[in-house]
Amino acid sequence: MEEEQSPRLGREPATEPSPAPEWPKPECKNDDDAKDPESTGGGGGGGNGISSLEQPLLKRSTTLTASHLAIVGAKVSHIESLDYEIIENDLFKHDWRSRSNVEVLQYIFLKWAMAFLVGLLTGVIASLINFAIENISGLKMQHMVNLVREKRYWASFLYFAGVNFVLTFVAAVLCVVFAPTAAGPGIPEIKAYLNGVDTPNMFGAPQLIVKHRRRVVGTGSRQGGPLVHIGACLANLLSQGGEGRWRLRWRWLRYFNNDRDRRDLITCGASSGVCAAFRAPVGGVLFALEEVATWWRSALLWRTFFSTATVVVVLRGFIEVCRNGRCGMFGEGGLILFDVSDVTVRYHVGDLLPVTLVGVLGGVLGALYNHVLHQVLRLYNLINAKGRLAKLALALAVSVFTSAGLYLLPFAVPCTPCDPAFGDACPTVGNSGNFKQFNCPDGYYNDLASLLHATNTDATRNIFSTGTAGEFRLDSLLIFFAIYCVLGLFTFGIAVPSGLFLPIILMGSAYGRILALVLARFVRIDHGLYAVLGAAALMSGSMRMTVSLCVIFLELTNNLLLLPITMFVLLIAKTVGDAFNPSIYEIILDLKGLPFLEPKPETWMKDLAVGELAAAKPRVVTLQVIEKVSTVVEVLRSTPHNGFPVLDRPRPGVSELHGLVLRSHLMAVLKKRWFLTEKRRTEEWEARERFSSTELAEKSGSINEVAVQLTPEELDMYIDLHPFTNTTPYTVVETMSVAKAVVLFRTCALRHMLIIPKFQGPEITPIVGILTRQDLRAHNILGAFPHLANKRKVH
Amino acid sequence: MEEEQSPRLGREPATEPSPAPEWPKPECKNDDDAKDPESTGGGGGGGNGISSLEQPLLKRSTTLTASHLAIVGAKVSHIESLDYEIIENDLFKHDWRSRSNVEVLQYIFLKWAMAFLVGLLTGVIASLINFAIENISGLKMQHMVNLVREKRYWASFLYFAGVNFVLTFVAAVLCVVFAPTAAGPGIPEIKAYLNGVDTPNMFGAPQLIVKHRRRVVGTGSRQGGPLVHIGACLANLLSQGGEGRWRLRWRWLRYFNNDRDRRDLITCGASSGVCAAFRAPVGGVLFALEEVATWWRSALLWRTFFSTATVVVVLRGFIEVCRNGRCGMFGEGGLILFDVSDVTVRYHVGDLLPVTLVGVLGGVLGALYNHVLHQVLRLYNLINAKGRLAKLALALAVSVFTSAGLYLLPFAVPCTPCDPAFGDACPTVGNSGNFKQFNCPDGYYNDLASLLHATNTDATRNIFSTGTAGEFRLDSLLIFFAIYCVLGLFTFGIAVPSGLFLPIILMGSAYGRILALVLARFVRIDHGLYAVLGAAALMSGSMRMTVSLCVIFLELTNNLLLLPITMFVLLIAKTVGDAFNPSIYEIILDLKGLPFLEPKPETWMKDLAVGELAAAKPRVVTLQVIEKVSTVVEVLRSTPHNGFPVLDRPRPGVSELHGLVLRSHLMAVLKKRWFLTEKRRTEEWEARERFSSTELAEKSGSINEVAVQLTPEELDMYIDLHPFTNTTPYTVVETMSVAKAVVLFRTCALRHMLIIPKFQGPEITPIVGILTRQDLRAHNILGAFPHLANKRKVH
Repeated sequence: MEEEQSPRLGREPATEPSPAPEWPKPECKNDDDAKDPESTGGGGGGGNGISSLEQPLLKRSTTLTASHLAIVGAKVSHIESLDYEIIENDLFKHDWRSRSNVEVLQYIFLKWAMAFLVGLLTGVIASLINFAIENISGLKMQHMVNLVREKRYWASFLYFAGVNFVLTFVAAVLCVVFAPTAAGPGIPEIKAYLNGVDTPNMFGAPQLIVKHRRRVVGTGSRQGGPLVHIGACLANLLSQGGEGRWRLRWRWLRYFNNDRDRRDLITCGASSGVCAAFRAPVGGVLFALEEVATWWRSALLWRTFFSTATVVVVLRGFIEVCRNGRCGMFGEGGLILFDVSDVTVRYHVGDLLPVTLVGVLGGVLGALYNHVLHQVLRLYNLINAKGRLAKLALALAVSVFTSAGLYLLPFAVPCTPCDPAFGDACPTVGNSGNFKQFNCPDGYYNDLASLLHATNTDATRNIFSTGTAGEFRLDSLLIFFAIYCVLGLFTFGIAVPSGLFLPIILMGSAYGRILALVLARFVRIDHGLYAVLGAAALMSGSMRMTVSLCVIFLELTNNLLLLPITMFVLLIAKTVGDAFNPSIYEIILDLKGLPFLEPKPETWMKDLAVGELAAAKPRVVTLQVIEKVSTVVEVLRSTPHNGFPVLDRPRPGVSELHGLVLRSHLMAVLKKRWFLTEKRRTEEWEARERFSSTELAEKSGSINEVAVQLTPEELDMYIDLHPFTNTTPYTVVETMSVAKAVVLFRTCALRHMLIIPKFQGPEITPIVGILTRQDLRAHNILGAFPHLANKRKVH
Repeated sequence: MEEEQSPRLGREPATEPSPAPEWPKPECKNDDDAKDPESTGGGGGGGNGISSLEQPLLKRSTTLTASHLAIVGAKVSHIESLDYEIIENDLFKHDWRSRSNVEVLQYIFLKWAMAFLVGLLTGVIASLINFAIENISGLKMQHMVNLVREKRYWASFLYFAGVNFVLTFVAAVLCVVFAPTAAGPGIPEIKAYLNGVDTPNMFGAPQLIVKHRRRVVGTGSRQGGPLVHIGACLANLLSQGGEGRWRLRWRWLRYFNNDRDRRDLITCGASSGVCAAFRAPVGGVLFALEEVATWWRSALLWRTFFSTATVVVVLRGFIEVCRNGRCGMFGEGGLILFDVSDVTVRYHVGDLLPVTLVGVLGGVLGALYNHVLHQVLRLYNLINAKGRLAKLALALAVSVFTSAGLYLLPFAVPCTPCDPAFGDACPTVGNSGNFKQFNCPDGYYNDLASLLHATNTDATRNIFSTGTAGEFRLDSLLIFFAIYCVLGLFTFGIAVPSGLFLPIILMGSAYGRILALVLARFVRIDHGLYAVLGAAALMSGSMRMTVSLCVIFLELTNNLLLLPITMFVLLIAKTVGDAFNPSIYEIILDLKGLPFLEPKPETWMKDLAVGELAAAKPRVVTLQVIEKVSTVVEVLRSTPHNGFPVLDRPRPGVSELHGLVLRSHLMAVLKKRWFLTEKRRTEEWEARERFSSTELAEKSGSINEVAVQLTPEELDMYIDLHPFTNTTPYTVVETMSVAKAVVLFRTCALRHMLIIPKFQGPEITPIVGILTRQDLRAHNILGAFPHLANKRKVH
């Protein structure tokens, strides 16, 4: 019974080297901080066995070696599952029953207060970040342009590159040293977390601070990703009442010390982040719903909406306070980022053809972008694997390269004479404005500088501007597209937290304008509208979202008449992109080796029964309902599992599957030495007297530390598991098809699923096996049953 | 084993009279048309037992007698469940395996083509309806006003009332005679359908036609509800390829002959309907997501979005064609219904207080509206129960009353002098315009006539108009509010299909303007903005939606700056409303006795095991895997159940739960006389040769008709159930708590859930019981376990 039970079904051949190859030892299993309460406890990866050397499965990728897996600076050393299931053991049940109505109301109030706080803090932080970025970045640009106007080209270049270098250096050091997981956009990790994968240290205080700093010191204000991660970190910190020694241990916070409520709050946080990035409250909610969240219900929709409403109110408040230049360069644009509502957009049914072209090409480009990004990330992995110094050098090299490109390229394009119709608006020397003079003589402007030497928000505003068909030259737009393509691809993977959204929006709008120039003689659509549609098409082609992107664009541009045409473009681009490769988030999820459960089971899973899966695994480790202490210790030591089926023999010849006990609860019993000298069933009050449900929710230490303190006499005693066993685990009969089991596992947000026999009779063990997240992943199953791969079909 | 098995757990005392009291006999069980394929078959309410004398459960309602249940003209005679589960029996599995890639792609293409068609047809029908309404209603108003201008008051009244009377008469007759289920808004029924409740004749062709006619002839163009129902009907018809003898039996349509695909398509249809009503594509998708659909996944989100995008493109096309008055009074307003985007809305953080007041009062009024509507519907039930003539009389009485009110009340208010600032816009005589002269002398206008003697769309546009603070008098607004309150309440339940949305929007906007006038000296917010907020608050207070309403209002008014403040008002109104009573849809669902499964289980369900539920029911009816024909016939005759657990005895002392067989499949076997002369297991090819999965998906006839044709020799033969048994039914162990079982049942969209024993040993039957929708409804459980009611808590 105590034999080693390898939890990975489709284990890769041992020849593969891996950055984190060892199966996590029991000693290190329980130290991930802030484990949740009525659920995971500080459980090992076990009963399920989740390992980071899991080979990623990409629909179209062929062979990835394990060295790709220490991806993008994030060291995913060991991955736990989250326990979203409700544990119904006697102690927890007693706790619910004794909870008064006041306490229940308190809990409901708390949930809303937390959602409010998440929105409030995300709004405040986003405003502060924007304030800092707009001012720092604005001053930098202004000074640089002034030096150019004085023709001190070398000084201006050194100033520009130097400032960028220092800022990147600070950001990269912060990132590499303190919070490697803060690099990258964070959205795939949040998506995995909400799917039930616990990537440790994803949502801690260091991440929050590093992200924050980085946003402030960054070379550009990439919107989106980082703010989403910041929102999620805030949510996580709030739900725990803080972190480490700063953690608040208020009594009412105990209600929140569980994975379910944290999941909900992190959903609110992610929505708030998107909302803060785009000032799009409805778009934020939909983004969380469409892209990020795995489980969703009406009540959560409402609460998420409340969070994003709070964010918008906060943002509006800041903008109102900062009106009239009181906060430097912040607060000029108003609440709508790229307001094009004053423009009457005209298009007719006859324009469907060029618009279709925008969508199709956008889908192709988006898929291409995903493909190249995938290759770049794999390359970076190889470099990052060489250590911290390599990471730092990479980040700085990218910074120098970027600075040179941004600075030098505008000199390469010729100056354009100002159209007198624009009057004083052309040319401008200052920070904002659509026609930057830069190095040009009076009466001329440099169109590329108007795009490159502006904050990204200003650049977007410029390129989206309507009625400016002749403003940008084709070559400038091509350079702009190329440079942002390179920037987007290469700054993404370096040890600096960065976002995905804005580079893609900029590339997309350039692509749209390029297409507009090419098609100019055939079509009458405004070039600004082309830019908007191009941005939408590229976003959709790369990220494969539809409804949320549509609403985000609606909220960005504040023009409802664009809606039908945007929908059309988004749908086409997504369809085209899907024909080539999976979405960018799926690619990153796979590269990071996060065991994400897909919503749709593969077709061949219908032909496999869960009993066959169980037969391919080592025998399940079970416990008796009244078990010897030494056996419990031995089981906990020898296996990393997180849950153990509990069996009983109520009368001779009859056996019973009593339920499932969690590692953390066994640890709590061992720590408290709640042992029996004889083999008897305890009364309910005995356990209730000694254990509170809050205690059981606390994280447990290492089994070895606890075990050495036990005397031989104690090891000979017994433990009654009745009060700790979850008597209502989810079960499937062994004939159940894997396809249906996967749906059940995912829709009910399980961590363990017990397999019971189909036969009834004497001498039949009441449990056949146990299934976990890893067992149900297509790639692992195919490892054990390779013949099924041939049955793959379109679906 | 064949004993009668009462499927209603919490059966009401037999003292209650009921309009449909008899337990439906087997003979009439199989005649609901267009039963679905691999699932329900023509099964009886059984294995689950769903009955319409189900007493509705309202959170705050006390005692409802059964006579309330033949509600609102809709005769819900017997209610089936839908089978959204995937049936994995040998025949179906073989069918999937042999399906080629081309066929799979064909199927995917079909799904999208269907979604496109639903959008296209909904868009076309909505445009035609609007075209007809705007012209009929406009001409009616115009002629009436002309008569008033000529001071021929009696003639104009008789004309007005007469036209209304005739139109109502036609609508009511159509409704009462042909399609009683077309009355009412239809949204609760769609909600129930998507939850898994099959209300027969809900989505047929007569409903579609009646709704269509009614919209055309109606007394006012109540938006929303009917169009939603029309969309759903279209979707259902398309998925079946037509109805009755007009039904297309194309080969490729067979893929769609199942409940799952129909469910998805009906979701698309409902979204398209909302989209067509409000011209709000994103709002439509969100409405379906938030309010209507029970199951949701990303792929469906995308397809629904595609449908609504199609609707918008169609609407835009019609409006473009009808520009410049080419279609009479249709197509004037453009795509945005109540466009207020040209107005700069100013509000500041200091305005939060009055806005909160709008929300709080809106919530109270919405809850009050729900309460009164509940009472009115109960009263109508009593009248409707008296027969068709009573229904007709009721509808006509309401019509006369309405006409009188609408006509006479504008005479009661004094004329207002025109503000010279408005110039030619005041007064107007024609159909549109904000300042109607009606009975007033030149230079004066009648503000109440401006609201009442316009189509509802125009009325909304007038009342939403900004910069018109002094236009409406307080007494006119009060009258308007009162009359629409009465109209909304009393036209809702009559035998005429009607919508919920527009009356509430109008009431709400009047309420907002009233509040604006009352608070005028304290606050600076524009009165038009108050009207919008008031409408949002009342909608939210009555319907309890947030995100979708917010988006719908955004799309209605095309003003993004209103978004934060609208969100705020919606959240407050919903919270306040929820404190009083459930949403209007839940009230109607309850009144109709539709067994809707709530998303959240009650707290006391944690304290009850499914085994206890099973013990309270009669013993489950099972079949052996090779069963005598006479036994099968007997079981089918004596029980109305839809599913039967199949047991096996592979070797002595060992028994096995082989799976679940559906009534419709048993019927198919009996019809084909696929009998064995000896008790043996058949080879797989034997069944595959005789039965196609398409045949099994067809509806089955009545058991008695089939049974009488069987000879005594045949009755003595055997049936091998192996090929027909779904070997992967969802199961729970008897110790599972009801709370978790409910979640499982709902999230996996089940129809049957088998309960298996927790013990393993000799002489233990491998099945304990079977659970269905009715067994898991809180009200029914409380009927059998009344002591649990005391444990009810806030949750």
